[in-house]
Amino acid sequence: MYREQIKVLDCTIRDGGLINNHYFTDEFVREVYKALSKSGIDYIEMGYRSSKELYPPTDFGAWKYCDDEKIREIIDGIESNLKISVMVDSYRVKEQQFVPADESPVDLIRAATYVKYIDSAIELINKCHDLGYETTCNIMAVSKEIEPDIVEALKQLAKTPVDIVYVVDSFGSLYCEQIEYLVKLYKEHLPGKEIGIHCHNQQQLAYANTIEAIIHDANYLDGSLNGIGRGPGNCCLELLVGFLKNPKFDLVPILQVIQDYMIPMRDEIEWGYLIPYMITGILNEHPRSAMAMRKTDQKDKYAEFYREICDSLD
Amino acid sequence: MYREQIKVLDCTIRDGGLINNHYFTDEFVREVYKALSKSGIDYIEMGYRSSKELYPPTDFGAWKYCDDEKIREIIDGIESNLKISVMVDSYRVKEQQFVPADESPVDLIRAATYVKYIDSAIELINKCHDLGYETTCNIMAVSKEIEPDIVEALKQLAKTPVDIVYVVDSFGSLYCEQIEYLVKLYKEHLPGKEIGIHCHNQQQLAYANTIEAIIHDANYLDGSLNGIGRGPGNCCLELLVGFLKNPKFDLVPILQVIQDYMIPMRDEIEWGYLIPYMITGILNEHPRSAMAMRKTDQKDKYAEFYREICDSLD
Repeated sequence: MYREQIKVLDCTIRDGGLINNHYFTDEFVREVYKALSKSGIDYIEMGYRSSKELYPPTDFGAWKYCDDEKIREIIDGIESNLKISVMVDSYRVKEQQFVPADESPVDLIRAATYVKYIDSAIELINKCHDLGYETTCNIMAVSKEIEPDIVEALKQLAKTPVDIVYVVDSFGSLYCEQIEYLVKLYKEHLPGKEIGIHCHNQQQLAYANTIEAIIHDANYLDGSLNGIGRGPGNCCLELLVGFLKNPKFDLVPILQVIQDYMIPMRDEIEWGYLIPYMITGILNEHPRSAMAMRKTDQKDKYAEFYREICDSLD
Repeated sequence: MYREQIKVLDCTIRDGGLINNHYFTDEFVREVYKALSKSGIDYIEMGYRSSKELYPPTDFGAWKYCDDEKIREIIDGIESNLKISVMVDSYRVKEQQFVPADESPVDLIRAATYVKYIDSAIELINKCHDLGYETTCNIMAVSKEIEPDIVEALKQLAKTPVDIVYVVDSFGSLYCEQIEYLVKLYKEHLPGKEIGIHCHNQQQLAYANTIEAIIHDANYLDGSLNGIGRGPGNCCLELLVGFLKNPKFDLVPILQVIQDYMIPMRDEIEWGYLIPYMITGILNEHPRSAMAMRKTDQKDKYAEFYREICDSLD
């Protein structure tokens, strides 16, 4: 699929950070940055810029905060055209600071929100836009929202300077026809804005749904190395780059960093398709119950887990 | 997706047998048969009916041959509406015998062939139909065939009594638009026949492509427990049953047999999404090179493998 407007964003460090409290080593982040630079990927998302008052640095690694100086330390001396993204939960903004974009290594600020907190996202987007950053709005958990509320949020976003609005399948519960519907809905209500897609892999549909979104003109595509991310993870970057035929992308550095770093990491942290995540996915539920049971000695008691979660939803 | 005509075929024992030379224990086959019966699945494929002259029984387990008496031994005493399928490589038929269907536990015979051997499939289908069996034709590796040859094969099949013709993505190389194209092509040239779909998971698209085929009116759907099958495996039966809303299906017995048998089996044999299979998938190649390298100490050298296979195709 060749379309020049397509941009790929790697969220390895950011979404992967959700499963290790953002404790990636500097070496790892640097090697990922190098590999993505060589592969011609467009954006790397380093993590969150979270409030240290709400999330004390004693409990989280550096990528929970993505301080400008920390990012500079990582990228120092590496030749790269890779743009840098950080995510902000717009409804949990407290004392986070943003310097003007031309004084920061960050290019893109992604405002993550739920529909009900859309005003907080708009405030953040306006502020960051004025500081010179590119901006997105990532509306989470839309599979749980009723359509008039989604449309109202999109209409408000249409009036802002936001560059890209993402369809986010937070619970990995959507299949292709629903992705098509949402992408078209977003495009209809967001004239002139770009549409992005961020999928989760509960049902092994993250890559397929990303393709579906591409077919319907989403141009901003999220992936992560070997699919790392919360629960089962995200769309695999290697699959996405295998699909996109634009010669600017090179698969080899991606394969290399996966074999060097992601395979050993699998011994320490778990992600990928597992039945408990599939169960929360088909039920359109947050994966937290599955994440919790995977940490117990009942982690492979799928039938019992399914019965329990069905009963709890009755 | 509720459509009464939809039938689900589990190919756990047959396609899974390709990774352990068909050496499943009687206990396992019996438990799978029980679980599928309770789950309301329509067909179980027990394995191949292969020629013992071509494949000596010293080298393979019982499910390479699926003798009627062996099948009877397994299903004896289990209450079930599950129909039984066996696959035959129609281009390797030698001395295999088929008694009339009403004297056999087998209901369905699936003729697997390549386009170039379509005549052998037609001969087998005619013979089995006359003996009273339901029949399918599974045309393998169509992603490597030119369209006039596929159409010629379909036109010949249209004149036979075959009940179902399968779109088979042998190399896991196809994505949704190609599946849509093929299902429509098959329907166009096979008036009055049912269309089936059998996908492989090289690119995590087996389930998504099965959904795509359902959308375009394929009614015969292959899946396997936890996706077991050659290389990365097949469409996961648990995902498929999670998607189909027909209340005749029950997910619990499927989850139970996965937790009891498939999880321990993963310690002995390997299947599922792995980068070497992804590489053969995106290159539309047979997974045999990936299967071979996974048995060496170079099994996680993805970048080297990718370079080698690209060079070998140049």
